[in-house]
Amino acid sequence: MAAERKMAADTNGELRELIDEWAIAVRAKDIESVMSQYLSDVVAFDVVDPLEYKGTDMLRQRLTDWFSSFEGPFGFEITNLEVEAGDYLAFCHSLNRAIGIKTDGVQVNMCWRATLCCRKVEGRWRITHSHTSVPFNVETGLASLDLEP
Amino acid sequence: MAAERKMAADTNGELRELIDEWAIAVRAKDIESVMSQYLSDVVAFDVVDPLEYKGTDMLRQRLTDWFSSFEGPFGFEITNLEVEAGDYLAFCHSLNRAIGIKTDGVQVNMCWRATLCCRKVEGRWRITHSHTSVPFNVETGLASLDLEP
Repeated sequence: MAAERKMAADTNGELRELIDEWAIAVRAKDIESVMSQYLSDVVAFDVVDPLEYKGTDMLRQRLTDWFSSFEGPFGFEITNLEVEAGDYLAFCHSLNRAIGIKTDGVQVNMCWRATLCCRKVEGRWRITHSHTSVPFNVETGLASLDLEP
Repeated sequence: MAAERKMAADTNGELRELIDEWAIAVRAKDIESVMSQYLSDVVAFDVVDPLEYKGTDMLRQRLTDWFSSFEGPFGFEITNLEVEAGDYLAFCHSLNRAIGIKTDGVQVNMCWRATLCCRKVEGRWRITHSHTSVPFNVETGLASLDLEP
């Protein structure tokens, strides 16, 4: 049991490293480094339309568009991260935030929910599924872009 | 390797059973049966506000409200289900649909994305994290309630 706990702590640590590297790459708008964290079979449910992004080509386009929607660098934070890793499958969820200025001059400070599902391939954790979203307000039908944790 | 594949097929089958039982319970609006599928530490990111539902009490209230928002029975379908199960951790994602009549008379036929993250406890798979959402339209800021897979 102690050995199992140690293993869980180790694999959780490995997964946190993946998340850290991914966050650093996002802040740097380094699309190659970001994409290297995803498996080719990735299915991504994104904050914005459409319902799903299937495969790395579609996801790469979406992330490229997202990065270039900001004027210059932008702040990206991951909070409330909870990680659970097994031998070769893992998942985590968090509340993420982006702060920056869009190319149309609009200031953005937005929080969203993120779930990442990962598989260990050749000794390395990578993302096979991602789900990011904001909830919506039932009264107005509007996406809730200003909620705070 | 053949043994590993067999084990993966078995655990994937077990997880599909959990999803089937959960869907049957949702269709029956059987809140006790639905809640028995969740672990007490569940964190749920739901389609509607707020950002997160933490623990079974908060989730039970949300699901009770959802069930009672429909006049009588409602249709609930899970499509595009992809399951990945390890020894004691698993995740799956799907596109779900509800069809029914709300208590205010409004006809609903809505599709959303769902991700479930599960842990095996005492030989039984249960849900420790759920993330359900619709994306939003960047032009209008409205939640996209009429997207089709």
